[in-house]
Amino acid sequence: MSDLSSLVIPSGFRFGATTAGLKASGRPDFALIVADEPASAAAMFTANQVSAAPLAIDKIHLEMTGGKVRVVLINAGNANCAAGQAGYNAAKETCLAAARVFACPAEQTFPSSTGIIGVPLPAEKLIAKLPELAQSIGPNQEKFAELAQAIMTTDLVEKTAFARVEIPSAEDGSKCIHIAAVCKGSGMIHPQLLPHATMLVYILTDAAITPADLNNLLQCSVNKSFNRISVDGDTSTNDTVLLLASGASGVAISPSTLAAYDLFADALDHVCTSLARQIVADGEGVTHVVELQISGASTDADALKVAKAIAHSPLVKTAWAGSDPNWGRLMAAIGYSGANIDPNKIDIHFGLLPICQNGGRHPDYDPLSAHNYISQPAFTINIQLHQGEGSCTFWTTDLTHQYVSINADYST
Amino acid sequence: MSDLSSLVIPSGFRFGATTAGLKASGRPDFALIVADEPASAAAMFTANQVSAAPLAIDKIHLEMTGGKVRVVLINAGNANCAAGQAGYNAAKETCLAAARVFACPAEQTFPSSTGIIGVPLPAEKLIAKLPELAQSIGPNQEKFAELAQAIMTTDLVEKTAFARVEIPSAEDGSKCIHIAAVCKGSGMIHPQLLPHATMLVYILTDAAITPADLNNLLQCSVNKSFNRISVDGDTSTNDTVLLLASGASGVAISPSTLAAYDLFADALDHVCTSLARQIVADGEGVTHVVELQISGASTDADALKVAKAIAHSPLVKTAWAGSDPNWGRLMAAIGYSGANIDPNKIDIHFGLLPICQNGGRHPDYDPLSAHNYISQPAFTINIQLHQGEGSCTFWTTDLTHQYVSINADYST
Repeated sequence: MSDLSSLVIPSGFRFGATTAGLKASGRPDFALIVADEPASAAAMFTANQVSAAPLAIDKIHLEMTGGKVRVVLINAGNANCAAGQAGYNAAKETCLAAARVFACPAEQTFPSSTGIIGVPLPAEKLIAKLPELAQSIGPNQEKFAELAQAIMTTDLVEKTAFARVEIPSAEDGSKCIHIAAVCKGSGMIHPQLLPHATMLVYILTDAAITPADLNNLLQCSVNKSFNRISVDGDTSTNDTVLLLASGASGVAISPSTLAAYDLFADALDHVCTSLARQIVADGEGVTHVVELQISGASTDADALKVAKAIAHSPLVKTAWAGSDPNWGRLMAAIGYSGANIDPNKIDIHFGLLPICQNGGRHPDYDPLSAHNYISQPAFTINIQLHQGEGSCTFWTTDLTHQYVSINADYST
Repeated sequence: MSDLSSLVIPSGFRFGATTAGLKASGRPDFALIVADEPASAAAMFTANQVSAAPLAIDKIHLEMTGGKVRVVLINAGNANCAAGQAGYNAAKETCLAAARVFACPAEQTFPSSTGIIGVPLPAEKLIAKLPELAQSIGPNQEKFAELAQAIMTTDLVEKTAFARVEIPSAEDGSKCIHIAAVCKGSGMIHPQLLPHATMLVYILTDAAITPADLNNLLQCSVNKSFNRISVDGDTSTNDTVLLLASGASGVAISPSTLAAYDLFADALDHVCTSLARQIVADGEGVTHVVELQISGASTDADALKVAKAIAHSPLVKTAWAGSDPNWGRLMAAIGYSGANIDPNKIDIHFGLLPICQNGGRHPDYDPLSAHNYISQPAFTINIQLHQGEGSCTFWTTDLTHQYVSINADYST
């Protein structure tokens, strides 16, 4: 696994973006990822019952092809959700146009949308830009950066993560696999991804992997990363994570060569966790990123309940915004989380600072130290429930004036 | 049932308040309700597993007495929660002191606390004020107003509701029963009251009713009022609703005289609903009060899931703060509510304005009219799911800059 400085974009893909006129800002809003050959694909989508038209099409296309994708079409500025048959038709027409331009079956296209809900997507604006965009795509880092920028909505920074995995080989020395991943997401962030989330994530690798193995790898990584973050507790209608494997490295990854498989899985975990944390750090109006470490729960599910109750409490999140160590609000959230707890057995630390012991104020609790600790832009809260072995790590944010400003005047 | 102008305080009770020094503001913070004779009592408490010391004592006392209360002790400025054995002892000592002052068994006392969590209650401050306070209590409206003011924390206004019920009688013309109710609550408001929420509600009547009948009446009314409101989704550790019946009117209410029982139940509903709406209207930083009318759900429970998902969505609540008709956020919340829905069968109205039809934008949707409608300080959103006969009415609020300001610097 390499650091950013030695990154290389995986072979077998080209990227690019243009301005189709969907964003009021006039910034680039339409991007493509094109695989040179049909790539193995695995995807996970939002658990929201109200979900966008492109997701319905993606599911059908993946089913029809058995997990093969050539062209990913991504627009920002319009979610194409709650737009009825017109929305479905708009997505479908865009796919058909892309299939003509790239001379591939329509079912090898994968549309994605993000932006406002309830406004029909003007497909003609995307279709008109396709020929020009198809000419301008390329396999290099600059083009990858265009992709990362075009898919942003309320995001302030582009979010990418990279990994290089050396696979030892007895015959011809070690070989390299590359992973490059890009995502957007800032508000309406509480992904609940199911195997068949407006966070959009695209992960590309030049490893050779079957769609079935890709699916297993993706589910494992997503459950430790994107399904463990929340900005505002609002699960989007459009969340999507897509993992594509071009095979262009010539290195095959499968469970039958477990050492290599594990190396790849670790690299995928690294990339997914990096992107998940980047989304939280760029959450709407965020001034504090909080890592919640819940341990001693009866079950992992109970630990997650406690983390989510805390992560979704407006009183806790506003206290963090003010660097207010008001730990009683944590206790209240733990109490209504639905997890199995004993209020008199709860210990809380802020980093290494003791805060609460056996459900009451720790004798060494010092409000000023606690205030100073949580004044940092990133901090950790550790909660020990003393009920069992269940645990989880969860990343979340404060709730600030800026969050209110961003969301009180988004559409009008 | 009378309007406010003809209110009369129920006989058999005295009230009053003083300043014990718990509120940093120096305002009155310690109040008493004293029944002349042990009153029939029914109470409901928070479902939060972390609950305050006085609630534990209240439950034991009501159990010991079979539902009889003489002295209610209420302090604001300290929740006496997450304060361990010291907190329990502080509440217990205050009860014992009150029992001495009023010459009643300790188990006929009912302590309540509201304020910051995790700070031991200085019982000595309350105990020192008891003798003087006992001298100053009285049965009139001015004293009732002292009570209403002393129990406020972040509340901006005092909250009271009154009802007078005429019970027709064949023998000696009609007789009157009176109900007077008082409550506090502004933040950490999402009561989930169980029969055995820091909302504090005290309802007094001079009807003669058994504790068992009082319990039934209270549960019915609470499930239509306090259990149907949310400001921030944070269920408090201290929520309490107490209903006391002195019997001093000489009018007995029981299921055996159904017409009178129903009249009383209606009056109780009226008082509880009025207080519940007053709490929402005085919610922390609130600029818009929203009535959610959910209908056509598979079950009433499903309707409540939809209402709560909407009421707890920061994206929906901030849109309301900006009078932004962004109804797509409503669709997203409905989609992740967990209720049984068909996204293509959802109709939404703002008041009488059509917004969404069959899950998509209504042809007559007019953003400006919608914006103007939800610019009002109170408005109604009607959601028809077309799944069945389940329904609910729920009251909630927007999420404003002022909410963030209030809660980013409450304790430090």
